Amino acid sequence: MELRPRVRECGIKIGILETGEENSITDVPGVRVGHATLIRGSGKLSPGHGPVRTGVTVILPHEGNVYREKVRAGVDVQNGAGELTGALQVMEWGILETPIALTSTLNVGLVHDAIVDCVLDQNPDIGIGSEVILPVVGECDDSYLNDARGRHVKREHVQEAIANAGKKVPEGSVGAGTGMSTLGFKSGVGTASRRLSSDLGGHVLGVLVVANFGSSGDLCIDGVPVGRELPADRDGPSDGGSIVTVIATDAPVTSLELTRIAARVPLALGRVGSTSSDSSGDVSIAFSSAERIDLSSASPPRMVRAVATKTLDAVFRATVEATEEAILNSIFTSETMKGRDDNVSPGLPIDETLKIMRKHGRM
Amino acid sequence: MELRPRVRECGIKIGILETGEENSITDVPGVRVGHATLIRGSGKLSPGHGPVRTGVTVILPHEGNVYREKVRAGVDVQNGAGELTGALQVMEWGILETPIALTSTLNVGLVHDAIVDCVLDQNPDIGIGSEVILPVVGECDDSYLNDARGRHVKREHVQEAIANAGKKVPEGSVGAGTGMSTLGFKSGVGTASRRLSSDLGGHVLGVLVVANFGSSGDLCIDGVPVGRELPADRDGPSDGGSIVTVIATDAPVTSLELTRIAARVPLALGRVGSTSSDSSGDVSIAFSSAERIDLSSASPPRMVRAVATKTLDAVFRATVEATEEAILNSIFTSETMKGRDDNVSPGLPIDETLKIMRKHGRM
Amino acid sequence: MELRPRVRECGIKIGILETGEENSITDVPGVRVGHATLIRGSGKLSPGHGPVRTGVTVILPHEGNVYREKVRAGVDVQNGAGELTGALQVMEWGILETPIALTSTLNVGLVHDAIVDCVLDQNPDIGIGSEVILPVVGECDDSYLNDARGRHVKREHVQEAIANAGKKVPEGSVGAGTGMSTLGFKSGVGTASRRLSSDLGGHVLGVLVVANFGSSGDLCIDGVPVGRELPADRDGPSDGGSIVTVIATDAPVTSLELTRIAARVPLALGRVGSTSSDSSGDVSIAFSSAERIDLSSASPPRMVRAVATKTLDAVFRATVEATEEAILNSIFTSETMKGRDDNVSPGLPIDETLKIMRKHGRM
Amino acid sequence: MELRPRVRECGIKIGILETGEENSITDVPGVRVGHATLIRGSGKLSPGHGPVRTGVTVILPHEGNVYREKVRAGVDVQNGAGELTGALQVMEWGILETPIALTSTLNVGLVHDAIVDCVLDQNPDIGIGSEVILPVVGECDDSYLNDARGRHVKREHVQEAIANAGKKVPEGSVGAGTGMSTLGFKSGVGTASRRLSSDLGGHVLGVLVVANFGSSGDLCIDGVPVGRELPADRDGPSDGGSIVTVIATDAPVTSLELTRIAARVPLALGRVGSTSSDSSGDVSIAFSSAERIDLSSASPPRMVRAVATKTLDAVFRATVEATEEAILNSIFTSETMKGRDDNVSPGLPIDETLKIMRKHGRM
Repeated sequence: MELRPRVRECGIKIGILETGEENSITDVPGVRVGHATLIRGSGKLSPGHGPVRTGVTVILPHEGNVYREKVRAGVDVQNGAGELTGALQVMEWGILETPIALTSTLNVGLVHDAIVDCVLDQNPDIGIGSEVILPVVGECDDSYLNDARGRHVKREHVQEAIANAGKKVPEGSVGAGTGMSTLGFKSGVGTASRRLSSDLGGHVLGVLVVANFGSSGDLCIDGVPVGRELPADRDGPSDGGSIVTVIATDAPVTSLELTRIAARVPLALGRVGSTSSDSSGDVSIAFSSAERIDLSSASPPRMVRAVATKTLDAVFRATVEATEEAILNSIFTSETMKGRDDNVSPGLPIDETLKIMRKHGRM
Repeated sequence: MELRPRVRECGIKIGILETGEENSITDVPGVRVGHATLIRGSGKLSPGHGPVRTGVTVILPHEGNVYREKVRAGVDVQNGAGELTGALQVMEWGILETPIALTSTLNVGLVHDAIVDCVLDQNPDIGIGSEVILPVVGECDDSYLNDARGRHVKREHVQEAIANAGKKVPEGSVGAGTGMSTLGFKSGVGTASRRLSSDLGGHVLGVLVVANFGSSGDLCIDGVPVGRELPADRDGPSDGGSIVTVIATDAPVTSLELTRIAARVPLALGRVGSTSSDSSGDVSIAFSSAERIDLSSASPPRMVRAVATKTLDAVFRATVEATEEAILNSIFTSETMKGRDDNVSPGLPIDETLKIMRKHGRM
Repeated sequence: MELRPRVRECGIKIGILETGEENSITDVPGVRVGHATLIRGSGKLSPGHGPVRTGVTVILPHEGNVYREKVRAGVDVQNGAGELTGALQVMEWGILETPIALTSTLNVGLVHDAIVDCVLDQNPDIGIGSEVILPVVGECDDSYLNDARGRHVKREHVQEAIANAGKKVPEGSVGAGTGMSTLGFKSGVGTASRRLSSDLGGHVLGVLVVANFGSSGDLCIDGVPVGRELPADRDGPSDGGSIVTVIATDAPVTSLELTRIAARVPLALGRVGSTSSDSSGDVSIAFSSAERIDLSSASPPRMVRAVATKTLDAVFRATVEATEEAILNSIFTSETMKGRDDNVSPGLPIDETLKIMRKHGRM
Repeated sequence: MELRPRVRECGIKIGILETGEENSITDVPGVRVGHATLIRGSGKLSPGHGPVRTGVTVILPHEGNVYREKVRAGVDVQNGAGELTGALQVMEWGILETPIALTSTLNVGLVHDAIVDCVLDQNPDIGIGSEVILPVVGECDDSYLNDARGRHVKREHVQEAIANAGKKVPEGSVGAGTGMSTLGFKSGVGTASRRLSSDLGGHVLGVLVVANFGSSGDLCIDGVPVGRELPADRDGPSDGGSIVTVIATDAPVTSLELTRIAARVPLALGRVGSTSSDSSGDVSIAFSSAERIDLSSASPPRMVRAVATKTLDAVFRATVEATEEAILNSIFTSETMKGRDDNVSPGLPIDETLKIMRKHGRM
């Protein structure tokens, strides 16, 4: 299976800002991403046995112990038919103190417990001399391709994803994105980033999505209604679904501003063709690694030299652009996949797509 | 001044759903819209004297007494750097009990008082035997063209707008839209509507916007980046601004669902090029005229036969499509305007625009 | 261990409304509650081995299959330093479709997975022909007494709690309440209910709390500052903590109104002495069993004949009274408990307490 | 009319923290409060002519130009059947940039416009070279005593209140509190403050309320159910109403923390007997004068050295205590008032009240 291109490698530029070095969430210093991917079996579904098309993705906000050195964060919910455990605490405190894990909907409980495990291992005082934790676990539903009832993501896979975590972010049908589909096509994990100009501080903002939403026919690429022009696929994934978006930045923004950054995601969703359906869990979390916070300190050095309005507006723009591109990357990089009961999620036909893009005066 | 075309009259179709009869918010039975438009003076600003480029727009949810016969409503705030008086009560009760008025930011107080006047006149028991009221007044900032400090919208203009209210909705530089600009071009009031297919209930949903947001260069029309391809206008309106969106439907939806309908507006904002800047007041209110509620009744007949999920998804889609088209209508129908201190907001050059649209394979 | 009295059995009446028959959340027709209680070991903490002072409590909204026959619900967050999985979906849809489980903080993941298990068993189409689920699991931190790191609540305990579910609700150190402390005293599960007068519809509203919050010295009983007058207990549980509140009613209220009902809980928290500390997870969920909703139906019979304002105000009052009484019941019915590392949470000294109450002119 | 005592002057101490010097919101350095009080006419209501029992209260966050030197702020809505204009912007930005005005419900528009007037006078660039403003105006309904339809508070009264603004805060039936009633008794403006111990930073937090809520019979004073024990007053004010609470502090807290501080108000409302009725506008705004923010600066010095958790908890406690005491002060200091149509709101009978307090072991 040869590697499929990212959207920018096809000559399609989303927006006007520059990307970060790798055009990835890990362009934000310290941020690392790891996947564990589970693909095995084929044919008829036997709940508990497969076929398995699922996984878990972990985002580490920095290379240290996040429970000891917390980061500011904020959450936005465009449509709450999804889970993001820990969201209430992030909203209340404006603080993130665990890794972020993403997985299959029915697997949230086991992954939650595995994250607890990992954080406890690292912090022997939790639950004894110190507070407990509420991990952040998000999800999308991969049951179109996966034996979702089987909940195949176990503790060891979470450990594996954490162990794998690095600056290089595989995209497409990997990790939590393994069994996902978007706007009628196979999708999965996608990432992108933007760097502000140096007069605006040179900050980096990166986005990672697990995309699994929308209706066949609605896909827009850089404004071109590709979904309407590609031949309809009768037997593709059904409408609905979700998208979970993780935004990282090194801009020194407050928790309230991070909430507002997360609230720019819907602007990108609209651009790619989402109408945010009733059953969609469109949930976003943003964090800033600009400062690490030790709440146990008597006088915590929560120092914020906030960005100017002009910079904040550029950060908002970076969020919209990087989210749009991350979603498209999640589609472009995903091969056709056959899953349980031979359900098929078709990979975006890139040549035909580029033909349509050209017809529409792009590239 | 010849009438400029609406976007659909130029051959550009937004989305896939059918429009209502007039492609207007007033396609929703009972809904009426009235404007009072104030244009006078030119040249150098003399605060309090002009030049005046402002107005007020009033939306009446039905032809009856709204205080007596309330309607369900919901509010969404994408970016709250704007005012929508009465919003807290609409959010709490899920009920709208006054007309909705839109005007210039600094004029909110006077218009608020004028609406109080009108509702008190109609209801001699308010503040005596009955509860008081909290009118719903929204705003955008027209100070680029208008003597905003002068607060020229007076009681009589609100009365005029209410007296004018009808099914025909003038668009462009009228009413509250008189002095507004969007994405670098003159804009103002715009409206559009969608009708669901009869198997989904045949409900109508209409949108009216006062658009006044976004950065020059960002305008997208049906996904085409027209703003980037049109010659830049050096001296146009500055970035920032706001958009207030009013959504009406006759679908029998709950207040919670109306909140969720209003929350689809950002998906349309993204499509036309908004990144929802820091200073933008992107506020939306949705109401359903499906049922009129008399809260003074001992056993209020708040009967709801709610829509099915499939219908709700179609209502969401209708909201996104109609909002996008209403914004574009507000731009297409607005002539170039010169205002205070000879500030100019250029009308969208329609011929050049259509040329670009054709180049991009549209029409 | 003889049974300790409930607060009302001591002659203390909270509020002015009548209680339901059993003064319990299960006075609401169809609601059932089950516990599994884990108490074993003593002395020094050996993480993973004990001592164990924990459990799980399950609330079933009605005797049917809640996934098939959903109920309306709403959530309020007074201070979000707590977890309530599924909350985002309840907020979005106004719908509850799983049992509610409460447990120890670090055990949320395993209990979440166990609830998934139970609901999947009952519904073989979930994740295949039908949507997936997001269970509602709340928590408080019992690590002062319990080997919280050990996460001793397993699948079989959740199954046991569901199997045990009935109309009789054991209170105090049982189920999720086993290891909890409140305002310096041992607490746990508490419940209470109120019945509206027949001219207001005769509806019942019941509350169940797992109480685990507040500072030693702050306990107020029916307004009497008992905590200040009882001798201070040096070595009691530390400040902080959480309270999760479940409210059930058969009043035919909307989801928005259920959110507002849940938002009355803080009024009761204030009455017993809470100042809602930074680390407190004060989270409430309310549901109405008045109507069961089948969302898979093409035209779902979501019929609401809503209550009048007067009735709603009485429902609000019932919420405040029943929550206050449920919290006090959780304290009154809890014996002194010694837990891990011989940490002690002292039972409220009832005789002394009643002496103070009398001194203050009560009873 | 001799001056009535404040609650603490009667020997009743609310809570355990020390008060500030004057036990007033103006103990926070820089904060000033001014009233304009309108009392004229008596007997039968003639709408537009009186009798008049109303006014306006203005809170100035510091002695400077608040538009130039903004302060951090947050808003909480316990029950949103009330107005607080500008709230959406405060929530979005976490910033307050105008004085806060409080008045009679139907008078919000005129007072809003008058505040615009004052701020424009002070800032000739607003609406020309600079952004516009959204003033913060709150309200309660004084129509039981006042000719509310007459909207008697005019521009000159707002100017008068601002001119009067000082450190001394008259309480009771003054300013916005003139025509208000609470829990069956005459009330109005009340204030109180708390000072943290020096090891917690020695910060001051002050509260000012306009109280106008609750049902006759429900009044609790320091936990004593005085309302139930005082003879019922047949012809007093009806139930319902609102309370608007303004909280000021010099603690260096973030906007998110100010939102959370405002969210402690309901804990105090419960303590005095509120069940937050359907028609109650229970809205709170908190601001910190610890830092003044110039957003026009390219690199705004938004420096925050945030408080430790222990300090934040003390700030929360201070909020609850000061709010409870401010409400009681608003009642204690208000004489019986006869208003329109000879409606009477009875002053709390202080001697009888203290007798009941003594019977309950207080003082």
